[in-house]
Amino acid sequence: MKVAIYGYGNLGRGVECAVRQNADMELFGVFSRRDPAQVYTLTGVKVYPAQDILLYKNEIDVLILCGGSATDLPGMTPQLAKDFNVIDSFDTHADIPVHFKRVDEAAKAGGHIAMISVGWDPGLFSLNRLYANAVLPQGSDYTFWGKGVSQGHSDAIRRIEGVQDARQYTCPVPEAMEAVRRGENPVLTTRQKHTRLCYVVAKPGADLARIENEIKTMPKYFDEYDTTVHFISQEELDRDHKGIPHGGSVIRTGKTGLNEENTHVIEYSLKLDSNPEFTSSVLVAYARAAMKMLGRGETGCRTVFDVAPADLSPLSGEELRAHLL
Amino acid sequence: MKVAIYGYGNLGRGVECAVRQNADMELFGVFSRRDPAQVYTLTGVKVYPAQDILLYKNEIDVLILCGGSATDLPGMTPQLAKDFNVIDSFDTHADIPVHFKRVDEAAKAGGHIAMISVGWDPGLFSLNRLYANAVLPQGSDYTFWGKGVSQGHSDAIRRIEGVQDARQYTCPVPEAMEAVRRGENPVLTTRQKHTRLCYVVAKPGADLARIENEIKTMPKYFDEYDTTVHFISQEELDRDHKGIPHGGSVIRTGKTGLNEENTHVIEYSLKLDSNPEFTSSVLVAYARAAMKMLGRGETGCRTVFDVAPADLSPLSGEELRAHLL
Repeated sequence: MKVAIYGYGNLGRGVECAVRQNADMELFGVFSRRDPAQVYTLTGVKVYPAQDILLYKNEIDVLILCGGSATDLPGMTPQLAKDFNVIDSFDTHADIPVHFKRVDEAAKAGGHIAMISVGWDPGLFSLNRLYANAVLPQGSDYTFWGKGVSQGHSDAIRRIEGVQDARQYTCPVPEAMEAVRRGENPVLTTRQKHTRLCYVVAKPGADLARIENEIKTMPKYFDEYDTTVHFISQEELDRDHKGIPHGGSVIRTGKTGLNEENTHVIEYSLKLDSNPEFTSSVLVAYARAAMKMLGRGETGCRTVFDVAPADLSPLSGEELRAHLL
Repeated sequence: MKVAIYGYGNLGRGVECAVRQNADMELFGVFSRRDPAQVYTLTGVKVYPAQDILLYKNEIDVLILCGGSATDLPGMTPQLAKDFNVIDSFDTHADIPVHFKRVDEAAKAGGHIAMISVGWDPGLFSLNRLYANAVLPQGSDYTFWGKGVSQGHSDAIRRIEGVQDARQYTCPVPEAMEAVRRGENPVLTTRQKHTRLCYVVAKPGADLARIENEIKTMPKYFDEYDTTVHFISQEELDRDHKGIPHGGSVIRTGKTGLNEENTHVIEYSLKLDSNPEFTSSVLVAYARAAMKMLGRGETGCRTVFDVAPADLSPLSGEELRAHLL
């Protein structure tokens, strides 16, 4: 199957690498809104101007959309779903129902499959919430994120006057996780679940106390959390905080038995060196599933909830039953 | 939907309790090969003689088969799949392909859905192996079991001359799990992954040294493991080892990036107070999925690999996308 990438940032580069790990896939190329002559791909794969994409309609099986959820995907996915099978990683949880509806109409009109909100949260974490809720109807859900870099929070700090650069880590509170794992079913506030750790490079002469105060009191982003601010040099930031690690855990604890006397704990955890590369790997697996579903005559919008696990694998049903069941 | 239980041991009692936690299900009754007058159900639900089951063919939506994999299910599941939608927990991994084929023929002939090998291993653990392999094609799989009671190993000890009762726990080796979680990709022997812990009640006057030696040298069951044997009284066994806890972890570590320079760890763990009650809860969730799939015209044999996650939930697609994605 021929896969193309639409948008070439961290996620697009991740898809470029991930496709090489799948023998049944070939990378057609990258579509970029920037001048193709100025875009250098990791593997040397060809770059096309985004506006020419319809010229290649018959040469691409699945288009993986690597734009951002805030401004790119809400328009991009419905637009491209008319002419292509598409996969996106739309992650604004509250807007998923509206996005689904618009993409579904476009994909059905064009006779295509569109898979939205693919990645790990939404994505693999959502799957684990669903499986655990179906198996243990009487129980409680917990999601912890981190330790990992939050791009949105890092950007928010960079917008403060006097800040030259910043990196923010979201950290789960170990005591809260342990209480959940022991089946204690705690009621946890935002502050009790996560802390925020900030590494900030200040501009020369900036008022550090004011910057720290502005970070810690920033509504929604930081004010509901215990936040630690460390001022470091640009060299230290570049040396020690260049990666984009992330991860987290979805935990459900539930009860069974005649008097619900038995407790069970289901935990799914990810520890990721590179958030965009892992997300890309999930996108690529769902691109395979999209082709299988299209092959069975399905069209319209789908999410990870709608995809039978076997469709993600290059192996046949017989092989899966013999080796992975 | 009306659910019936076929076979009334620990698993059947678990299903009896699990059905009560699902508002869209009703328990029709229990079918037993024992004299119904001698079978006392936990909830007082009616017991029918197993041989009368065809009389109730039109009153039962899904039949959950609660027999054992060694001698019951190989015959029972194909036989009953001709006349009922069935779910079983067939767990002899090596024989799944043959079981699948026989059940598939019977279910297709009868126009029914049959879901085999449902539970946690095979079952939820298998799903996690599949998802993790699809997302990280370059990597290694690890499965650790326990700490938990192995019924098969406990039975094997009980068959030794001079043994009155026994309980065997399978324990993962913490150092091995930690090495895997650190992404060290270790090659582990059977002995390096699990230890076996045995609590044995000897008959009066039995030769304890001989019993201990027979356990530790028993081929396949114990000889490849570091095994510890504790002799205790029947009172201690009944007081401290009455439960049937189990659990374990499926871990996949994999690499991504242009030069596979980034490591990711995916871990799925279960900590279960009651192995049969948890397995029952999984069976009941897949009974719901079977009805949805039948409603779309599907027939034949299926495994957890073939079931779209949304089919396990009583919630609609809209509700799932709004609340769990």
